[in-house]
Amino acid sequence: MIFTCNRNNLTNAISIAQKAVDPRTTYNILEGILFVAEEGKLILTANNLEMGIKTECPAEVKETGKTVIDSKIIGEIVRKLPEDIVTITVNNASDITIVSGSAEFKIKGKDAEGFPDIPVVSDGEKIVISQQEMKEIIRQVIFSASTDETKKVLTGIYIETDGNNVVVVAIDGIRMALRRSVMSQANSNFSCIVPAKTMNDIGKILGDDEGDLAITVSNNQILFSVPGTEVVSRILEGKYLNYRNLAMTDYQTKLVVNTEQLLSCLERAVLLYSEARKYSIKFDINNDVLTISANSEGGKIKDEMPVNMEGKPMSISFNPRLFYEIVRVIDEDTVVLNICTALGPCTIKPVSGDRFVYTIAAVRGTN
Amino acid sequence: MIFTCNRNNLTNAISIAQKAVDPRTTYNILEGILFVAEEGKLILTANNLEMGIKTECPAEVKETGKTVIDSKIIGEIVRKLPEDIVTITVNNASDITIVSGSAEFKIKGKDAEGFPDIPVVSDGEKIVISQQEMKEIIRQVIFSASTDETKKVLTGIYIETDGNNVVVVAIDGIRMALRRSVMSQANSNFSCIVPAKTMNDIGKILGDDEGDLAITVSNNQILFSVPGTEVVSRILEGKYLNYRNLAMTDYQTKLVVNTEQLLSCLERAVLLYSEARKYSIKFDINNDVLTISANSEGGKIKDEMPVNMEGKPMSISFNPRLFYEIVRVIDEDTVVLNICTALGPCTIKPVSGDRFVYTIAAVRGTN
Repeated sequence: MIFTCNRNNLTNAISIAQKAVDPRTTYNILEGILFVAEEGKLILTANNLEMGIKTECPAEVKETGKTVIDSKIIGEIVRKLPEDIVTITVNNASDITIVSGSAEFKIKGKDAEGFPDIPVVSDGEKIVISQQEMKEIIRQVIFSASTDETKKVLTGIYIETDGNNVVVVAIDGIRMALRRSVMSQANSNFSCIVPAKTMNDIGKILGDDEGDLAITVSNNQILFSVPGTEVVSRILEGKYLNYRNLAMTDYQTKLVVNTEQLLSCLERAVLLYSEARKYSIKFDINNDVLTISANSEGGKIKDEMPVNMEGKPMSISFNPRLFYEIVRVIDEDTVVLNICTALGPCTIKPVSGDRFVYTIAAVRGTN
Repeated sequence: MIFTCNRNNLTNAISIAQKAVDPRTTYNILEGILFVAEEGKLILTANNLEMGIKTECPAEVKETGKTVIDSKIIGEIVRKLPEDIVTITVNNASDITIVSGSAEFKIKGKDAEGFPDIPVVSDGEKIVISQQEMKEIIRQVIFSASTDETKKVLTGIYIETDGNNVVVVAIDGIRMALRRSVMSQANSNFSCIVPAKTMNDIGKILGDDEGDLAITVSNNQILFSVPGTEVVSRILEGKYLNYRNLAMTDYQTKLVVNTEQLLSCLERAVLLYSEARKYSIKFDINNDVLTISANSEGGKIKDEMPVNMEGKPMSISFNPRLFYEIVRVIDEDTVVLNICTALGPCTIKPVSGDRFVYTIAAVRGTN
């Protein structure tokens, strides 16, 4: 196996494949990336048994072949090579030589035979959506997935399609994050739960303006394809919560607030809490003013901002950290808060349209 | 105590004072910063009992007074205030109110009476040097101080003056880093050993072009003064090594190398070593070519670069990480390596002048 390629192309391909390398794996061979040199290209494969990634790198292949190379070592070596061009030669005994300019590395590879295949997802429902849009959707919902392994389905991201509409949801038990979007090509009707870690890695692989992402869903696997890269992940089994019940629109108090002002207020409110998850902040809404106050053993904070309100005056408390994480990902200048009752919940929506809905439960106030 | 000041000025003053707050202190009061409001200014003091810092912040003082405020909390609050102007009010019971725009914080302070004074250093030898020059000197020697607490004097930085010349030295037992400089005003003759941690903090406080640094040395304390800030540190007791013996100029082989090429070569050479401190790289110098090679259980590397050499061909091995740290701080395009014998040491100097000298011991080669 002998090939020559561009150092930066190879660095990119390695960094994509590395997302499916689990550094804590107990399968020795899975610490490596499978390199397959074919006519005109190199294919890199990595697999952590929950998710597999296959990505291509253009290469001038003098001799086809395959080998497994330690993911960390090859990544560091290629990134630091002195010249733009790198030539890698592997002999039968998996002695690997990497040459770039005056620098020559010799390292050991592993036999490619033991490397587990990535499941093939050929049939199934297929949808297509812009990479940039999916990257943004993932950023806006992923933080709301649960990390509690005892509620397995909530550690995933729920994807549901209907015609050319798609809904992506994450619920951690206290919050819900929901994003709607329209797909470029699709007439499909399915739902599935994808591990949040997979969705997070997909978000990192997606480019800002490099064509579409195709998603194919089979029985128990999901395939994400962008030009040159395929990611296959298992799907979580089980039934997801009915998000429609959580996206309620009833309210006793409705307010329109400046997103940035609310965010910086929440940011200050968490300062006094060394363990922010334990505490609460109070929203008092009256006479078109939102007063946010908190009272911890560390001290007190009070802040206020003008709002447009409808309905009755309201006092309600929230976990400041969880509220802050929602407001941080909102990309609109102003948002609508609908507060159902003083016992919650609060839904956060755009001023017009239904592109996103966040719901957060109230907490019993401590101040 | 009531004062109003600019948020950014106060943030800067707090971040300077924080360098003398030891977060692991067992003296409760030393987790705080002493705030003293005097006519027209605020003075912040922090003290970790090895080093003390006193720094000023311009303020409009309505009522003088003093209090101690938790360093971490006040730092975070002030940095996140919504407006440029902040007013802090402290009543007798150390109830502190911080107001900026619509935001109001209430936290508790501590009685200033228990806060330990910083030693006064008035008499003693005094030197003056540009802040920028001292910042650069510290960067270029500090990495070479020992972290081995059993050789206490070597955990410090040695400063020696003679007329208007100053020499700053750090030795860790394997390496020496030495920088010479000329002071703006001085006719002094002293030597002292300053804890490396103090010098590191001084390096962070010094500005790039904001006037001079004055250093005053008394029996067991050293005072560093820049406009608005004073740092007092204890001096390490004991006798320092005779650095003149280590700055030797004899050589069997002398070579002039491109600094950047050597650095990137060394950077690649350490890639194969998971625990770089244990291994060695070999320099082979012959026919105006420097060949660097390494051989670890992880693999082999070989690299070469053109050099100008004098003297006889040479093979010598070094610890790659320790050599790399030296070359990384050198700010000249080319440097001279003088290799004494195949058993070392190697000295690294500028092509002309004696502004710096680095010495590194050889290691027994493993390849």
